[in-house]
Amino acid sequence: MLKKQQLFSLLASAILASASSSAIASNPAAPKVTVADWLAQSSAADWRELDADNTLYLQLPTGRVVIELANDFAPKHISNIKALVREGFYQNIPIVRVQDNYVVQWNEPDGAAPKPLKHASRSLAAEFTVQLPANFAFTPLADRDGYAPQTGHVNGFAMAIDPNTNHGWLTHCYGAVGIGRGNDANSGSGTAMYVVTGHAPRHLDRNITLVGTVRQGMELLSSLPRGQGAMGFYASADQYTVIQDIALAADLPPAQRTALQVLRTDTATFAGVVEAQRNRGGDWYQQPAGYIEVCNVRVPVRETPVQ
Amino acid sequence: MLKKQQLFSLLASAILASASSSAIASNPAAPKVTVADWLAQSSAADWRELDADNTLYLQLPTGRVVIELANDFAPKHISNIKALVREGFYQNIPIVRVQDNYVVQWNEPDGAAPKPLKHASRSLAAEFTVQLPANFAFTPLADRDGYAPQTGHVNGFAMAIDPNTNHGWLTHCYGAVGIGRGNDANSGSGTAMYVVTGHAPRHLDRNITLVGTVRQGMELLSSLPRGQGAMGFYASADQYTVIQDIALAADLPPAQRTALQVLRTDTATFAGVVEAQRNRGGDWYQQPAGYIEVCNVRVPVRETPVQ
Repeated sequence: MLKKQQLFSLLASAILASASSSAIASNPAAPKVTVADWLAQSSAADWRELDADNTLYLQLPTGRVVIELANDFAPKHISNIKALVREGFYQNIPIVRVQDNYVVQWNEPDGAAPKPLKHASRSLAAEFTVQLPANFAFTPLADRDGYAPQTGHVNGFAMAIDPNTNHGWLTHCYGAVGIGRGNDANSGSGTAMYVVTGHAPRHLDRNITLVGTVRQGMELLSSLPRGQGAMGFYASADQYTVIQDIALAADLPPAQRTALQVLRTDTATFAGVVEAQRNRGGDWYQQPAGYIEVCNVRVPVRETPVQ
Repeated sequence: MLKKQQLFSLLASAILASASSSAIASNPAAPKVTVADWLAQSSAADWRELDADNTLYLQLPTGRVVIELANDFAPKHISNIKALVREGFYQNIPIVRVQDNYVVQWNEPDGAAPKPLKHASRSLAAEFTVQLPANFAFTPLADRDGYAPQTGHVNGFAMAIDPNTNHGWLTHCYGAVGIGRGNDANSGSGTAMYVVTGHAPRHLDRNITLVGTVRQGMELLSSLPRGQGAMGFYASADQYTVIQDIALAADLPPAQRTALQVLRTDTATFAGVVEAQRNRGGDWYQQPAGYIEVCNVRVPVRETPVQ
């Protein structure tokens, strides 16, 4: 275990080194700092609670999947999802597609009569990217990305920006949650949704609206039996896993919520965590990578400590 | 469907475009070519059979996982794996670890008496990288990689090279198969093995010996129940999935082999497939990525056509 000042001193030298070279040599004299070292020295202020007004509970027969929504990136779709939640649209909605190394998807099954909607919409204008406000607070990743001019994090969400247009978008990392659509860019609404369960399909970025990320329970989705039809769709309805319901955390009494915290991504502790993933510490690694790609950054999530 | 000459003409212009820009604009007048277009025009010579002398069948209660070994990258470990196969070492070996978004691993369970070995070894010198022969035949990817100076393919295996040292290594993409080891770099042998089942953990590259890739049956591994212990290890032995055996294809009569072909990665058809993944065709995509990362290249595999 390293003391806090030692960690910050190491971090400063590591960031200087990684900015100048994509494959820095390891320094055998330096302590090999781990993510656990950084988290052990974190303070309560380094963490934030999930935002109950933007947290969904996807309730499966096997347990709860906790999804946090990134309202700034897709406000119209997220408003519509909340309307769908409150109308009971997601009650007994089936998972119709589980494609290996790609996505899990839920929507009304083909051929069934569409559920009647009250206030929610069946289609919305795409929110593939958003215009960023001036002085947008964003934690850039020092490492060069192939798919976007710049990547980084905001509020614990992986994202990319194009400084030329000042637009930003969420990236298709493992656990990203999005809005299914047809060929028409404006044909999605939240009545069909998906979660990324494989190697980041970054080619989907800016082609489809992302709304958030899974904070807990990914394994309940990623271990589902794969669909045997084209594109991982199940060949028959008796193979579906039926979602009992999707609830908004804020609509439940606090005692029924899942109390989770996300490491704030605008903190020095997060910078240390990223560096400890870029150049792995501990006794096992022989060759530091000297690089990290945005979808390989794991943003720490923990159960809220008991006071 | 496009004719062959149209496809090759499009490919030449696309490669020129992608070399000059990381985010090329789409040309709305150009046909939107898909992977399926390229595969539909492929000839028999574009495909090769799996190498039976370097193909393993991992037999699970649910079916067969087909692994192709890349002998040039880890000849000592692959020779040892074949010795382990022929000694029956893998009979009833359990899957002891299923860590979400990371790996599935099999080895003798902790606490059990080690299986006696006859000719195989319990530890071998690491084969993290190999010295490449002069004029090494390799299909480079035009796209810049973050983790390695150069990436590309050989014989359908994703790999990286460092031109400064003329060393090469297999990359940790989804489906990569490797050799578990302890903290000592030379402590692996094939008695413990793993398969990557999540977003490519490229930080493992050059830290552990890779031996090949899964060509069929990934979903049998990737959908296994996740282990609930630390690092995805199962908490108790009654949760194990037991591997019935691992066989070498060449040791089975041809009728019992799985007849699969891999698209040759040194062909113009493969170059077309890569370009069709870099800038997706069809009617759904609105924004071409203009980039592809080595672990997002899907190397086509098909059942051997009946003559």
